[in-house]
Amino acid sequence: MQFLEILEKKRDSGRLSIAEISFFIEGYTAGRIPDYQASALLMAIFLNGLDTDETVWLTESMLYSGLVLDLGDIAGIKVDKHSTGGVGDKTSLVIAPICAALGVTIPMISGRGLGHTGGTLDKLEAIPGFDVNLDLDRYRDTLRRTGLCLIGQTKEIAPADKKLYALRDVTGTVANRSLISASIMSKKLAEGIDGLVLDVKAGRGAFMERLEDAETLARLMISIGNRMNKRVSALITDMNQPLGTHIGNALEVIESILVLKGESDPHRTDLVELSYALAAHMIVMGDRAGSYEEALGMVQQSIDNGSAFEKFKEIVREQGGEDTCLDDLSLLPSATMTCLINAAEGGYIDSLAALSIGRGAVLIGAGRQTLDSVIDPGVGIILNKKIGSRVEPGEAVMEIHYNSEEKLAEAMSQFEGAISISKDPVPIPDVILKVLDEGETT
Amino acid sequence: MQFLEILEKKRDSGRLSIAEISFFIEGYTAGRIPDYQASALLMAIFLNGLDTDETVWLTESMLYSGLVLDLGDIAGIKVDKHSTGGVGDKTSLVIAPICAALGVTIPMISGRGLGHTGGTLDKLEAIPGFDVNLDLDRYRDTLRRTGLCLIGQTKEIAPADKKLYALRDVTGTVANRSLISASIMSKKLAEGIDGLVLDVKAGRGAFMERLEDAETLARLMISIGNRMNKRVSALITDMNQPLGTHIGNALEVIESILVLKGESDPHRTDLVELSYALAAHMIVMGDRAGSYEEALGMVQQSIDNGSAFEKFKEIVREQGGEDTCLDDLSLLPSATMTCLINAAEGGYIDSLAALSIGRGAVLIGAGRQTLDSVIDPGVGIILNKKIGSRVEPGEAVMEIHYNSEEKLAEAMSQFEGAISISKDPVPIPDVILKVLDEGETT
Repeated sequence: MQFLEILEKKRDSGRLSIAEISFFIEGYTAGRIPDYQASALLMAIFLNGLDTDETVWLTESMLYSGLVLDLGDIAGIKVDKHSTGGVGDKTSLVIAPICAALGVTIPMISGRGLGHTGGTLDKLEAIPGFDVNLDLDRYRDTLRRTGLCLIGQTKEIAPADKKLYALRDVTGTVANRSLISASIMSKKLAEGIDGLVLDVKAGRGAFMERLEDAETLARLMISIGNRMNKRVSALITDMNQPLGTHIGNALEVIESILVLKGESDPHRTDLVELSYALAAHMIVMGDRAGSYEEALGMVQQSIDNGSAFEKFKEIVREQGGEDTCLDDLSLLPSATMTCLINAAEGGYIDSLAALSIGRGAVLIGAGRQTLDSVIDPGVGIILNKKIGSRVEPGEAVMEIHYNSEEKLAEAMSQFEGAISISKDPVPIPDVILKVLDEGETT
Repeated sequence: MQFLEILEKKRDSGRLSIAEISFFIEGYTAGRIPDYQASALLMAIFLNGLDTDETVWLTESMLYSGLVLDLGDIAGIKVDKHSTGGVGDKTSLVIAPICAALGVTIPMISGRGLGHTGGTLDKLEAIPGFDVNLDLDRYRDTLRRTGLCLIGQTKEIAPADKKLYALRDVTGTVANRSLISASIMSKKLAEGIDGLVLDVKAGRGAFMERLEDAETLARLMISIGNRMNKRVSALITDMNQPLGTHIGNALEVIESILVLKGESDPHRTDLVELSYALAAHMIVMGDRAGSYEEALGMVQQSIDNGSAFEKFKEIVREQGGEDTCLDDLSLLPSATMTCLINAAEGGYIDSLAALSIGRGAVLIGAGRQTLDSVIDPGVGIILNKKIGSRVEPGEAVMEIHYNSEEKLAEAMSQFEGAISISKDPVPIPDVILKVLDEGETT
């Protein structure tokens, strides 16, 4: 087989065979197919597309480019969640301990922040001592004993994805449905899971802006999962404004703890609603509840009786973190300075752009501007208002926690530009826009 | 400027600016833009196209990536010809001495064989001692004294094209009108010419199969030339069957000499007609004749009085070749064995596929299968028949001149498959399908 023929076939809108796709993935992973040929194929795929079969084959080839964990020796149904990325999205930190406390095994391999969106690993590392780089033996062992483990992608998992993702990032070929789906699903399926709940974000702060595009992406990932005999559901959720009130690594750990402790705040309703829904879907998928409604009740119970919070403390200890921080939040990293962004006029918050706030967060040090940027875990934003909130002239809309005046100055226009205020009342937007699954609920 | 933004713009069918195109060409030539980003852009260009302005800007950027010769110190109008490549196309060897003998200065920088098509440099090197690798000082000097010089592309000429062409070749991005035009025109305009006659081939043995596609390509190159204040004409010519009777490097030198000596053969009419027409266009462009008809008469005269053939001997001597070979053709390289391909049945030759014969020629050693293949100058094919010829059952259609039984065996199906015979008379096809120029003739 000649790679050039595969390339010309896709260039001319042909349909690649399973053999051609695995020839590409094997050859590229092994270094026999150079980057400059792979990038030409990626652009041809970007522009001419892959159909569902081709996408399934691509996912399979990427999945088997590395180790596919077999967790058959660990009891129970293994379920994970994946979010396509947002601002203030700390649901993983909330739902993983809830589900584990309720007996669902959660083998969670997460990523770092990308662009304006945050990453679970970066958030976990805001907890002093927390180690996300466990090797696979310790991962298995922790999972068996705790029912939960939270680590980063190891080099054994889907190496083809690692290499391809880096190439897509520099060749304008990231935002393609098939390439996104294959990347996500190959990594997730390599974890050895039985089921997966997807949180596909839609809105101006998400990779997919339009609901229809998010839904098409979600349906494609569900098809891939089903074709590989995995249970997959998806929630399409809003990412026009940040989720919850806290953005930034230590701040998001704090907000997760507040949710796990049941401490309510009217501006946090979206985070709580989404976290409960995701967890309930995972509990049903993990066969721990007979219905979605029963599962929702169990979630509330795990909060009320403290078992979810205890599970979080347990996994923090297991992975080397200082669990005392979780009881005394002042022990977590924090910023030295605070500034308020006030409403220029009175009215109702009409927009609180997740994209701008996410970009501002990166600029003050909560995310990476280059590959080797070091994250400042203490900085971030706390929202005092959300879309639909009533605001008086001069009232604080957000609080910026920062460590550098210079960085704040760079980020200021992002924060200020994120806010718009309407004279007329604005409805509170739904966080869950659509549920796509296999029949439990709609 | 960020290269990724340029890439994304073309990916999304945007129009690139002159600044963006030169940023790409300068960056790629200097090695700041890596191959894997350039190949993604090439694929986006292949699929989304460049308009005429973008193509002109690409040509200019590629042209000025290297040295643009100024031949202002050499008297007369400098004219060259470029063919898009065919089988048995030795017109350069015929028209260069004719035009130089008639006072038109011919600064000719040629290429090597590519795929199934032959190359002028490989043919010239079949003449013992002929050196196509003159440096630019000797090139100028030879041109000044002889009115003619035949060399290969030096590293100073359009280095962006050299690098891009190599990348296009391995990334499935060769056959794009704009990329082909920019490649040809940037090299040709760097020679310091005032005018250019294009021979754009159409047919199953050409890169452009359909007449309309060849014409569109020709019109694009004429536009580029005109936008850069050069006179450009184009002939669209047939490349379904090989041109003339001889295919292979030394064999094509022999046939060129036969034409220059006026030795006629009814199967060579297409070669003679096309060579005369190209030369006449170049003579008009070089202001040596007032009309195309006058120029045609001058061409015939240069053959009849021996001045064209003498000019060929002169340039062979000038460039280190053994000119005695031209008087005694048995001194040129030849093959040790000959075999005949006979007609399976009687009738009229209906097709004599240039593509198959060209591929067969490469297989017996007349061209390169890989970049480091060594050409066997003596091997090739002599056609005893052409499309429209009457043939008796068992009569020889072609003669294969070869040096290796093994290679011949590999090539045999190409030669046999090239021939088809019809019971009914077949008209002799026109060689010149269309003339596109600036008003001299139509």
